Amino acid sequence: MTYCVAMRLEEGLMFVSDSRTNAGLDHIAVFRKLHLFGIEGERVIVLQSSGNLATSQSVITLLRERIQAEEEFNIHTVKTMYEAATLVGETLREVLQNYKEQGMDFSCSLLLGGQILGEEPKLFNIYPQGNFIAATQDTPYFQIGESKYGKPILDRALNYFTSIDKALRCALISFDSTIRSNLSVGTPLDLMVYINGSFKLPKGRRLYDDDPYFQMIRTQWSEGLKQVLGQLPSPPADYWQ
Amino acid sequence: MTYCVAMRLEEGLMFVSDSRTNAGLDHIAVFRKLHLFGIEGERVIVLQSSGNLATSQSVITLLRERIQAEEEFNIHTVKTMYEAATLVGETLREVLQNYKEQGMDFSCSLLLGGQILGEEPKLFNIYPQGNFIAATQDTPYFQIGESKYGKPILDRALNYFTSIDKALRCALISFDSTIRSNLSVGTPLDLMVYINGSFKLPKGRRLYDDDPYFQMIRTQWSEGLKQVLGQLPSPPADYWQ
Repeated sequence: MTYCVAMRLEEGLMFVSDSRTNAGLDHIAVFRKLHLFGIEGERVIVLQSSGNLATSQSVITLLRERIQAEEEFNIHTVKTMYEAATLVGETLREVLQNYKEQGMDFSCSLLLGGQILGEEPKLFNIYPQGNFIAATQDTPYFQIGESKYGKPILDRALNYFTSIDKALRCALISFDSTIRSNLSVGTPLDLMVYINGSFKLPKGRRLYDDDPYFQMIRTQWSEGLKQVLGQLPSPPADYWQ
Repeated sequence: MTYCVAMRLEEGLMFVSDSRTNAGLDHIAVFRKLHLFGIEGERVIVLQSSGNLATSQSVITLLRERIQAEEEFNIHTVKTMYEAATLVGETLREVLQNYKEQGMDFSCSLLLGGQILGEEPKLFNIYPQGNFIAATQDTPYFQIGESKYGKPILDRALNYFTSIDKALRCALISFDSTIRSNLSVGTPLDLMVYINGSFKLPKGRRLYDDDPYFQMIRTQWSEGLKQVLGQLPSPPADYWQ
């Protein structure tokens, strides 16, 4: 399984992915699920994937090869993020076409975010069928993969106007909760932040278990929760009698 | 959907269920998913259900009718909780037998907990196939239904030696997180607490949205979380650049 979150905020875009892939519990590996495309000063495009690894790797490879081959319609030539999402959706359908008759589920889900000169930053959730929806101010984040464990903290604490710094803390806590409750999601995490209007290709960061800031956040959050829980009032005397 | 939690703790057993049933988003109703059996001073047995409502109602009805009919092997005559779980599992298989050839999923999951004079309290998770596992000191709680949203808080804060009062707060927070993130789980909640060795049939409590204690817990938890989140240190200056 996988867990990926992407946020489209007033200040910028944030992407966090785990890196655990498993084909059965005894076949676990680390694969990057966060991919960067773009041209400094003109476009920054980030793609995250969950689901069948063969499918998502094929999609990424085709997208990259078509940039190299300078095909007319590729990720580096599309004029809008909507066109980029359409291209990625089509590429996904093209890959799945080959496996259609086997009656097995080779599908994957994708998050695509970025900014192309001339328009606002955009974030899309691309479904296994290749169609997609865009994030809005009302719904500023998308998740794919094992999303349920880490959803409550995002629902409670995140909105469009949340700062990047605070959103990063929310995201790390969301991952911590998921990693604790589900073996199929694991470190290292890949983090990428894009500041709106910068058109700067982010270096990104890979967070291992021993990352001092991630460790500190995890510990302080855990202790903070226990404290809040400890301070909640006891039920009235006859509450459950 | 449904969300039910049951805990087997040093001090006692606790059961919390939501009451929302849905057959499609436009067909929502309130049904009790927590059922009490027993004989004061001799046995206390609580059953929670998730999954197909027709199936779980049939199981409960058959269990009750067979007590009335004074059948030899019923919930009020079994000698151990293990026998009770076996009986419930058999009754579930018996009900599902009638629908087997339709190729549809009418299954349900059950949690069965209680104490019969002469043995320790027990808690079982009964699978749709009718087999079951027992809670232990290592794994003191079970969930059925929409379990993922509310699992992180239980994993962080609950263990066998947690007091009933604190476990109740954990459970209410676990439900709050689930209700906020998933429309298919809703109030009122049904709560039942059994103090080990008491052999007293608990009255239980139904918690509506306006329950003052539940409201207070929800508000304080939400504010506490925001405070803890706000107090987490910002990332180092070059963290995501």
